[in-house]
Amino acid sequence: MAKIQRCNYVLYLLVLILLMMNIFFFIKELESKSKCSEQEKRKLSWSQRAAEEAEAVASISCSGHGKAYLDGLVVDGIPTCECYTCYAGPDCSLLIPNCSANAFGWDPLFYEPFWMENAESSAVVIAGWHRMAYSFPDPTSHLSQELEKTIRKLHSVAKNAITDGRYIAIGVGASRLLNAVVHSLSMENYSSSPYPAKFFAKPPHYPFYKLQTDYLQTRHYEFIGDPSMLNDTDVGGDVFEFVTSPSNPEGNLEGPVLKGGPNVKYIFDRVYYWPQFTAIPAPADDDLMIFSLSKLTGHAGTRLGWAVVKDVNVYNRMKEYIHQADMEMSKDTLLGALTILRVVTEGDGKKFFNFAHEILRDRWEKISHIFSLSKRFSIQHIPTQYCTFLNRAREPSPAFTWVKCKREEDKNCTHVFLEEANIRGHPGSGFFADHTYVRLGLVTRQHDFDMLISRLEQFISQEEENGYCISPSINNQ
Amino acid sequence: MAKIQRCNYVLYLLVLILLMMNIFFFIKELESKSKCSEQEKRKLSWSQRAAEEAEAVASISCSGHGKAYLDGLVVDGIPTCECYTCYAGPDCSLLIPNCSANAFGWDPLFYEPFWMENAESSAVVIAGWHRMAYSFPDPTSHLSQELEKTIRKLHSVAKNAITDGRYIAIGVGASRLLNAVVHSLSMENYSSSPYPAKFFAKPPHYPFYKLQTDYLQTRHYEFIGDPSMLNDTDVGGDVFEFVTSPSNPEGNLEGPVLKGGPNVKYIFDRVYYWPQFTAIPAPADDDLMIFSLSKLTGHAGTRLGWAVVKDVNVYNRMKEYIHQADMEMSKDTLLGALTILRVVTEGDGKKFFNFAHEILRDRWEKISHIFSLSKRFSIQHIPTQYCTFLNRAREPSPAFTWVKCKREEDKNCTHVFLEEANIRGHPGSGFFADHTYVRLGLVTRQHDFDMLISRLEQFISQEEENGYCISPSINNQ
Repeated sequence: MAKIQRCNYVLYLLVLILLMMNIFFFIKELESKSKCSEQEKRKLSWSQRAAEEAEAVASISCSGHGKAYLDGLVVDGIPTCECYTCYAGPDCSLLIPNCSANAFGWDPLFYEPFWMENAESSAVVIAGWHRMAYSFPDPTSHLSQELEKTIRKLHSVAKNAITDGRYIAIGVGASRLLNAVVHSLSMENYSSSPYPAKFFAKPPHYPFYKLQTDYLQTRHYEFIGDPSMLNDTDVGGDVFEFVTSPSNPEGNLEGPVLKGGPNVKYIFDRVYYWPQFTAIPAPADDDLMIFSLSKLTGHAGTRLGWAVVKDVNVYNRMKEYIHQADMEMSKDTLLGALTILRVVTEGDGKKFFNFAHEILRDRWEKISHIFSLSKRFSIQHIPTQYCTFLNRAREPSPAFTWVKCKREEDKNCTHVFLEEANIRGHPGSGFFADHTYVRLGLVTRQHDFDMLISRLEQFISQEEENGYCISPSINNQ
Repeated sequence: MAKIQRCNYVLYLLVLILLMMNIFFFIKELESKSKCSEQEKRKLSWSQRAAEEAEAVASISCSGHGKAYLDGLVVDGIPTCECYTCYAGPDCSLLIPNCSANAFGWDPLFYEPFWMENAESSAVVIAGWHRMAYSFPDPTSHLSQELEKTIRKLHSVAKNAITDGRYIAIGVGASRLLNAVVHSLSMENYSSSPYPAKFFAKPPHYPFYKLQTDYLQTRHYEFIGDPSMLNDTDVGGDVFEFVTSPSNPEGNLEGPVLKGGPNVKYIFDRVYYWPQFTAIPAPADDDLMIFSLSKLTGHAGTRLGWAVVKDVNVYNRMKEYIHQADMEMSKDTLLGALTILRVVTEGDGKKFFNFAHEILRDRWEKISHIFSLSKRFSIQHIPTQYCTFLNRAREPSPAFTWVKCKREEDKNCTHVFLEEANIRGHPGSGFFADHTYVRLGLVTRQHDFDMLISRLEQFISQEEENGYCISPSINNQ
């Protein structure tokens, strides 16, 4: 009897255990179901393949010294690595010996880490049927209302330009817009004037101003160059001055050289007038201002520029020119640019602008400290100025270092840096300055900048050993 | 004792049931886990948000008479519907009364359903850090190797052009490339010749040939027009003829008018030389051929054109022009275009080309049947020709109907169609033909085409009632 009793207890215990196990499995099943259905809800349909493909390509590491792209050369079904300067090999792991430090380039790749950190908000899916028509539904508009709103918000966030009551024209990069501006302005009085319009820019300046006008060889405008070459006796024809502020290559805020008058107008190239490059003393309010995505966010490959224009006639002629030349802009490009600009204008814009400003300030501190130890070279001076974006005085953080070789025997400064320091800079002559200048870029990838700094430190430290001193005839600039 | 025995049986049964339930729940849990982990494997990270957003916008139906786009005007956090022609209202459900049938437009939107059906393969994710630099790693190349390979494969699949040993130049749409071609060709002997290069095109022709040359007003070329205006006594300067084949607006295969000679060269505008628009008697092998994504796939908004060029010097000057004018093309655009072209070239290309050909053939059958009943109007004749792509003789399927008003009193054919039939066509004068012609587009959305056909049927059927007959002085063309 006692045995039966004990046997029953064992059975009761077994039932209890099995019951508890059942409850356990039931709860687990419910949990899995809910987790699964959560995932089910976020399951994608037609965009899944493209998203998987993009993530797979992005996950190719290339040793941290290169990148694989969706449109990169495919070998064995996988896009190959494209190596950064000075790296090679299938996985970019080989450092090329004696590779010149890249300070020539103007690709603003120091922004890249920001966009990789903000991958989620900056990605965009282009559907196969996205805006297939030539134009937007409103045929008088060549950009979407959302992009226009975002550009206006951007200037208000950065506090760098007044856009209320101004027109926004867009083009394939700032360079294309400059074509449109030059054409538009020079046509203003073309029919009533026998003289072609004359364009000026104070050297050193961005070479494109001259190149494009020389290259296109139209009948109604010509590039003259230095404003000091405009004689008071010059008669006839409209006169236009390109004012780059902050200047390229020097990075200082600039005003026009030519005195105003009924026939004199200014084109303000403001592509560097952003809080990461310069103090913003006040929002700019010029008649015609040019900006670009390249300099602002680093998306040079996207090719978007815009102009803020006061005069409706100039704006209309620019739109007409862009329409005639390009039949509108790529709608894929405009969608990509909108996505990027929405990230920049999130909140008060501090996240983006501070990221970029801190890198450039740090780079300028390092490079200006090195050159301060040199007797052979001098660099531009940029004053500390009050910035309304940061609400404080702000240290310089230009995009370029503009170096002068001060010794008389250093006739070609670019050669000096290449041959003696293995640093590839941009010749000063490219900016219509003389050969004793060279421009060293500060907007490159971190690896390029680190290489530049390490070569420079070594190079400048050798000055003392070599006993260099400055020829008395040449002073510090 | 018997009671205890029965009680034990119940307990055994309970244990058995509970055991089976446990096994059941355990298996279910395993199943859920495996399903979940399958989903987990396909879970996306940074691209999920963009993909979800794109699918959410694509799912806005707009009553089937409009579309919402990612960069559409946002109201209450959602992009608004953009309605097709003749529709209005927040969800595009309102048909606008007495709306003119749209036969004016050149947006090739009849392709849209193909891209919506092939949404998965044609979507692309643009990462925030996609090709931020101005140029491709190989600075001599202005397109990716993959895009170049795909363009060559495309011509081989469509059997419409020889690309082996030819250069591929790209530009912002075919229009931009035409700028580059004109510039490149006219510079060939510019330095050695005192005369500007002369450009000709047999009317009726694409108006852009004249507009761009007139508009840009460069010193080294001018547009003359009809090749018959070239006198034998004309001396000096190079001579170029634009040959559009198939022609726009007529859709027939054409050869040059000007006789060849050392100073005479041809620019073949081949944007309609694809199996959906015309028979392909043989792959074209002209010195300079222009193609565009707009006409091929309907992606006019993407703005991509390319040229197949035999002469390396012409190719290099075109590249230089595009670089000077635009500083390269948008890398986002090129990635989008590559994705689209990869879909077109899948397999033998039949899926895409047959889709487009069948629609256009059907449209031509319908519209040519209607006009065959008319005494008042005539349309172009396109012969049935053998097509090497289809390997059979092929019925016409042009992009446009080129209509002539035959009655002397119908001085303006565009007005006749607008006022008497409420059909908006493209004036013949826009193609340098006279006002007795009008072009009716056949590449519009299905709804636009259906409206055109229904209005036309009614209009032509009234001829008999109105007792129209043709003035004896004008014959069928």
